[in-house]
Amino acid sequence: VIEGFNPTLILALSLAGTFVFGLSGGGAAARAHLDIFGVIVLSGVVALAGGIVRDLLIGTPPETFRDWRYLVAAGAAGVVCFFALPLLDRVQNSVLVFDAMGLSLFCVAGASKALDFHLGPVQAVILGTITGIGGGMLRDVLLRQVPGVLGPGDPLYAIPAVLGATILVLGHALGSTNLVFPLLGAAACLALRLVSIQFRIGLPVPRSVRGKGNHDEDDPTPP
Amino acid sequence: VIEGFNPTLILALSLAGTFVFGLSGGGAAARAHLDIFGVIVLSGVVALAGGIVRDLLIGTPPETFRDWRYLVAAGAAGVVCFFALPLLDRVQNSVLVFDAMGLSLFCVAGASKALDFHLGPVQAVILGTITGIGGGMLRDVLLRQVPGVLGPGDPLYAIPAVLGATILVLGHALGSTNLVFPLLGAAACLALRLVSIQFRIGLPVPRSVRGKGNHDEDDPTPP
Amino acid sequence: VIEGFNPTLILALSLAGTFVFGLSGGGAAARAHLDIFGVIVLSGVVALAGGIVRDLLIGTPPETFRDWRYLVAAGAAGVVCFFALPLLDRVQNSVLVFDAMGLSLFCVAGASKALDFHLGPVQAVILGTITGIGGGMLRDVLLRQVPGVLGPGDPLYAIPAVLGATILVLGHALGSTNLVFPLLGAAACLALRLVSIQFRIGLPVPRSVRGKGNHDEDDPTPP
Repeated sequence: VIEGFNPTLILALSLAGTFVFGLSGGGAAARAHLDIFGVIVLSGVVALAGGIVRDLLIGTPPETFRDWRYLVAAGAAGVVCFFALPLLDRVQNSVLVFDAMGLSLFCVAGASKALDFHLGPVQAVILGTITGIGGGMLRDVLLRQVPGVLGPGDPLYAIPAVLGATILVLGHALGSTNLVFPLLGAAACLALRLVSIQFRIGLPVPRSVRGKGNHDEDDPTPP
Repeated sequence: VIEGFNPTLILALSLAGTFVFGLSGGGAAARAHLDIFGVIVLSGVVALAGGIVRDLLIGTPPETFRDWRYLVAAGAAGVVCFFALPLLDRVQNSVLVFDAMGLSLFCVAGASKALDFHLGPVQAVILGTITGIGGGMLRDVLLRQVPGVLGPGDPLYAIPAVLGATILVLGHALGSTNLVFPLLGAAACLALRLVSIQFRIGLPVPRSVRGKGNHDEDDPTPP
Repeated sequence: VIEGFNPTLILALSLAGTFVFGLSGGGAAARAHLDIFGVIVLSGVVALAGGIVRDLLIGTPPETFRDWRYLVAAGAAGVVCFFALPLLDRVQNSVLVFDAMGLSLFCVAGASKALDFHLGPVQAVILGTITGIGGGMLRDVLLRQVPGVLGPGDPLYAIPAVLGATILVLGHALGSTNLVFPLLGAAACLALRLVSIQFRIGLPVPRSVRGKGNHDEDDPTPP
């Protein structure tokens, strides 16, 4: 869909994003006291699962799984987490910034791929968002936590991805085939993510349960 | 496979089932104190994941995901849950009945699709059941609960779906191509579900662990 | 890829592996006090999910799901777990040995299938390992546990699968098309698994968290 990108630059950015997402998974696994296999698996999960789920929903064989360079980038992140977690903890602000860059790149790339496969605009925004947040959601499920991206609390994580993907999709709807909208989408995602980290911006929770006690005793949810 | 259905009626019923399943997911998310993004994601998960898993197991691109009307129905349910949860709680008996209708429709539709793709009768029953219960299972996993549909306790939820799908598959084996068996399957599923809610009918648990203490200290499960 | 195997023997071994993996899932479900539906579902999950995930990652419709014999083998394991769990507990050492055999068979078969579909050696090793351990991981997630295979603790479970798959892939790289390397891979997997059960061999955990307190208060993981 998009022309004018330098393919080598795209590849380098994608591998860097994969690596940084892998750090997030491996770091969480190391903090959860998993062993070296668990650390590497969680690195791979966060780095690759979002793109894999996107490709399954599109109905095409998972692409990054076929490219050994992505597997190596994810595995390398796991090894780094295993051997150098204290170092990572010391540079955690940098990790947050790099993770925001990975999110920006992934949401735009995911939405773009959906459009390449002729899915609609709503689907493209959803798939861009899943590419960005899916790996982290699976990480949380494997570590027995409710995915943090579903809230409550701050800062924003999914909304910046939705924003970035939406801008990419708008550009496509306007007939643009150059790199203005992808760059704008990624920049908007990055900016909103960093601003909401800085100012602790979160999403609203349902009014009825705000400040209320536990409803579970009378839970009408079907099984 | 089946002739004589009014396509518009089928679509309306499917969208209604999607919406009601979405209420179940969004309601559980709101009660779990997730934010508005989490509420909408859980609505989408319950409304769509069963059909998506069915399509992945068949080996065809997920169909409902490609149709924006299903995405809108699921998202609308999430918005309703976010803004009107107290209202939903007041009409929870109606929600249970609508959810039973959704289950009836989904189990029959899922089994029918499996037969359309020339899968065997066992697979069709399994896929019909997964279409009905898969979304709720993923909702429970994301909210860090053992899926309630796996028991123990009452009322029945999966067995009505198994029954409805089995009746549909039987009709197909008998060569029927009209709407008698789909309607019969859906009605049987609905009736069994409502009866087991009314009379608190559940499934048996393994005898050896009934009333016994925790076996976990000596758990021989391989990892 | 491989010639010289007796197809009937392969089928019998695969069905036996499926059944034994099913016992592991059904047994865990029975110990978690699920009902008979939950026991059978967990049997199916452990028996089939690893191969299903492998096929989804390859991009081919899940194969074992299409073959009713695998479904029956998995379901039969669930029925056995429901009715004869105390018996299973008495022969738990045998179950561990049979499970190790299932693991050996699945890791070699999974890697072999990946090579059949022209995936690379790294992917083949990963898919062989996923075939062996994927079902057990999903069992643990459904039962709300961090997958045991991710550690920490002993004995080894994933590493024997990695070893077996690697030997199969090495044989393929060397141009071997007979059954020496598959058999060697399965034997090595089986031996390493049994030795690590006997001598309680585990994997290292990250140095920084070994013996330290909880890091969670200051968790820099992005959501």
